Amino acid sequence: MPKIWKEGYFMREIGVGLLGLGTVGSGVVRMLQDHQDKISSITGRRLVIRRVVVHNPDKPRSVDLGDIPVTTDVADLIHDPTVQIVVEVMGTIEPAATYIKQLLMAGKHVVTANKDLIAQRGDELIELAVDKQRDLMYEASVAGGIPILRTIANSFPADQILEVSGIVNGTTNFILTQMNQKNMTYAAALKQAQELGFAESDPTNDVKGIDAAYKMIILTRFAFGMTLSLDDLRVEGIDSVRLEDIKQAQSLGYTVKLIGTSKEIDGKVSVEVGPTLVANDHPLAGVQNENNAVLVVGAAAGNTMFYGPGAGQLPTANSVVSDIVSVTQNIVTGFTGNAFNNYAHEAALAQDEDSKSAYYFALKLRDIPGQLLTLTKIMTETEASFKQLMQTSSDGDYAHVVMITHKISLAQLKTITAQVADLPHAELLASFRVLE
Amino acid sequence: MPKIWKEGYFMREIGVGLLGLGTVGSGVVRMLQDHQDKISSITGRRLVIRRVVVHNPDKPRSVDLGDIPVTTDVADLIHDPTVQIVVEVMGTIEPAATYIKQLLMAGKHVVTANKDLIAQRGDELIELAVDKQRDLMYEASVAGGIPILRTIANSFPADQILEVSGIVNGTTNFILTQMNQKNMTYAAALKQAQELGFAESDPTNDVKGIDAAYKMIILTRFAFGMTLSLDDLRVEGIDSVRLEDIKQAQSLGYTVKLIGTSKEIDGKVSVEVGPTLVANDHPLAGVQNENNAVLVVGAAAGNTMFYGPGAGQLPTANSVVSDIVSVTQNIVTGFTGNAFNNYAHEAALAQDEDSKSAYYFALKLRDIPGQLLTLTKIMTETEASFKQLMQTSSDGDYAHVVMITHKISLAQLKTITAQVADLPHAELLASFRVLE
Repeated sequence: MPKIWKEGYFMREIGVGLLGLGTVGSGVVRMLQDHQDKISSITGRRLVIRRVVVHNPDKPRSVDLGDIPVTTDVADLIHDPTVQIVVEVMGTIEPAATYIKQLLMAGKHVVTANKDLIAQRGDELIELAVDKQRDLMYEASVAGGIPILRTIANSFPADQILEVSGIVNGTTNFILTQMNQKNMTYAAALKQAQELGFAESDPTNDVKGIDAAYKMIILTRFAFGMTLSLDDLRVEGIDSVRLEDIKQAQSLGYTVKLIGTSKEIDGKVSVEVGPTLVANDHPLAGVQNENNAVLVVGAAAGNTMFYGPGAGQLPTANSVVSDIVSVTQNIVTGFTGNAFNNYAHEAALAQDEDSKSAYYFALKLRDIPGQLLTLTKIMTETEASFKQLMQTSSDGDYAHVVMITHKISLAQLKTITAQVADLPHAELLASFRVLE
Repeated sequence: MPKIWKEGYFMREIGVGLLGLGTVGSGVVRMLQDHQDKISSITGRRLVIRRVVVHNPDKPRSVDLGDIPVTTDVADLIHDPTVQIVVEVMGTIEPAATYIKQLLMAGKHVVTANKDLIAQRGDELIELAVDKQRDLMYEASVAGGIPILRTIANSFPADQILEVSGIVNGTTNFILTQMNQKNMTYAAALKQAQELGFAESDPTNDVKGIDAAYKMIILTRFAFGMTLSLDDLRVEGIDSVRLEDIKQAQSLGYTVKLIGTSKEIDGKVSVEVGPTLVANDHPLAGVQNENNAVLVVGAAAGNTMFYGPGAGQLPTANSVVSDIVSVTQNIVTGFTGNAFNNYAHEAALAQDEDSKSAYYFALKLRDIPGQLLTLTKIMTETEASFKQLMQTSSDGDYAHVVMITHKISLAQLKTITAQVADLPHAELLASFRVLE
């Protein structure tokens, strides 16, 4: 009998398998290798990587796997009895979803960083995990290095969360920061972000707000216990933000950020993602570059904010490893199979009439008499009013006008924008939310 | 047999007792009453307040306790078999420590918000709790409403924490914010804070940095696994901060904050609390009024920051209730008795030579030739150098001089201040750390 058996091999070790070995996967391997002792002192178990499955085993890797077998067939993980926890960092919806289901069915616990998957297919995977009494955790899926999901689940269990808002996409925050600090246009800032590796060659998911929307779907599940699909959200990206808007916002005391907001209004929930003018003394205004931050407003806790790197190899790997440690602790206590978020609550979506905010409008008006009067009429008829109205420039033919409204509903906003679109001599250049 | 028994009375309810019913205690009662359903949906148990022990039972209370018995003898809690979790919110070191020991010995789990107690007597209480396989949790003891302890314990288990810094005292941050924003002197800002209830009539513990030091002792235990006493810390309060320092800092791009810092330097740990010039683009610079924030720097996670109310009835009560829920979950899984922080690590304190920082000096020099030369000589002989040296004012007799150094060690700082103190024509008005 081998020595390791005598020392209680199957008792004291937890076998980990990896599905994918890209940037985050390599970071997870490094952290498990480097911090073995600290993890053992906390969990009472040794975490041992037993097997890695990748698409291309010949690709050079940045970590030394020693003699850990690297193969290409997920069945190798599914059927390896020495693997208890599988880390899915391969990305994609399919085949990742199918693989995770097979792993859960085979009795593995799963940790994933795959936000698209959790946002779109989370419900069925979570249900299967609970059914099989297996853990499924995904801290790294939202705001990379910020432990926001575990914090909402563990630290607000008795509080009524009123709002979760934040900067949850590092790429767009980097681009907006460059535009803001260096007077760059959107196109120039995007190009720079791509060169520096902060934006992908096809940046659509980031700049259109889709990535942020997926994260808000996951945050909404934790904060309000309800499941949404992408169609339930109002989503606007940053590709429509002009340098002029950013400068105008600056001169009024605001910073333009891509803000995701999920909030309760009279028992209904409203979720949106869009460019937003954030008052400079608001804690989200100072979140720069690729960093993320999530503001949680609790009826009891008040305003709390959690700030940190939104992505990056090691921050994301740290979140994955905190999940692995948490699963390990559950294995030790024999208490696996509870949903990562076990707060479920039936709630309806708020209507356009319920959801209120101040708005910034930028308009281009033909420089002929009566244009401002027409605009003011539209506002009055919609029962909307403005705090500030300024003509910012005029070239003789066209005048540029900026307006900040008092709080209006989404329904009023839609009426105003539709009516302005019908005006023969006016063009609406931007309409962004304002966060005081 | 009563109906409740048939429905599984002892199975499905968890009995809670309160020791103390002041501001925080009343908040805990309100939260347990108001959010019963959410807590039950998460824990699978009903939390029921069974008994309250207070010093003066006739004092009017802001919460309706219904027919919950209120008595004055802690023995009533100790011997009540229906109470499993006791919330200690009476304050004081003694008799609180003795009571908590008796409660743990009697098999109760304990949740406390008492930072002085945990900082000074935490070790023996934690040891007793682990010995008796009972939970002892104290999230509310640091930074009131910010779930920082649970976050460090749960979300950085595999990371190597390099530094924990923060604004952990709301009273002093409120005073410094008033001085900064309203050009108030320290004395005037303190008076206002007292009138608004942000400072106590005897503000010593807050303004001298003692309260912040206790919190740094607890944070150090979580971040570095080591136990310190107050004597191990370098502590300076805000009562020496002049409005002139605040204005001077502003003009140089800094905000003066009371910062607690615990950091690792080559395997040794250095902990200090003192007024600090924080660069305006540092995330801690924007933390205003009574808010707190803790910056955690992890080797993997990078810079993360946790921001929120540092005190207040409901934020603090929310932290207490999150502990109660956590203990309840441990009772359900049968896995109680693990220390709240189970990271322990032998580490030495850093020496004065190891601990380096930039410093701000404010000096008053007799306006006679050669004074600046003398000062420069002291710096040169100490192998210190400065980034900036400015004469800020002169009344003919005295010149005021401000200096910001490059990084120097605490040993160099002490040499410089001792030598300046010996100069016949110079007075050192302030020497504060600088955080870039």
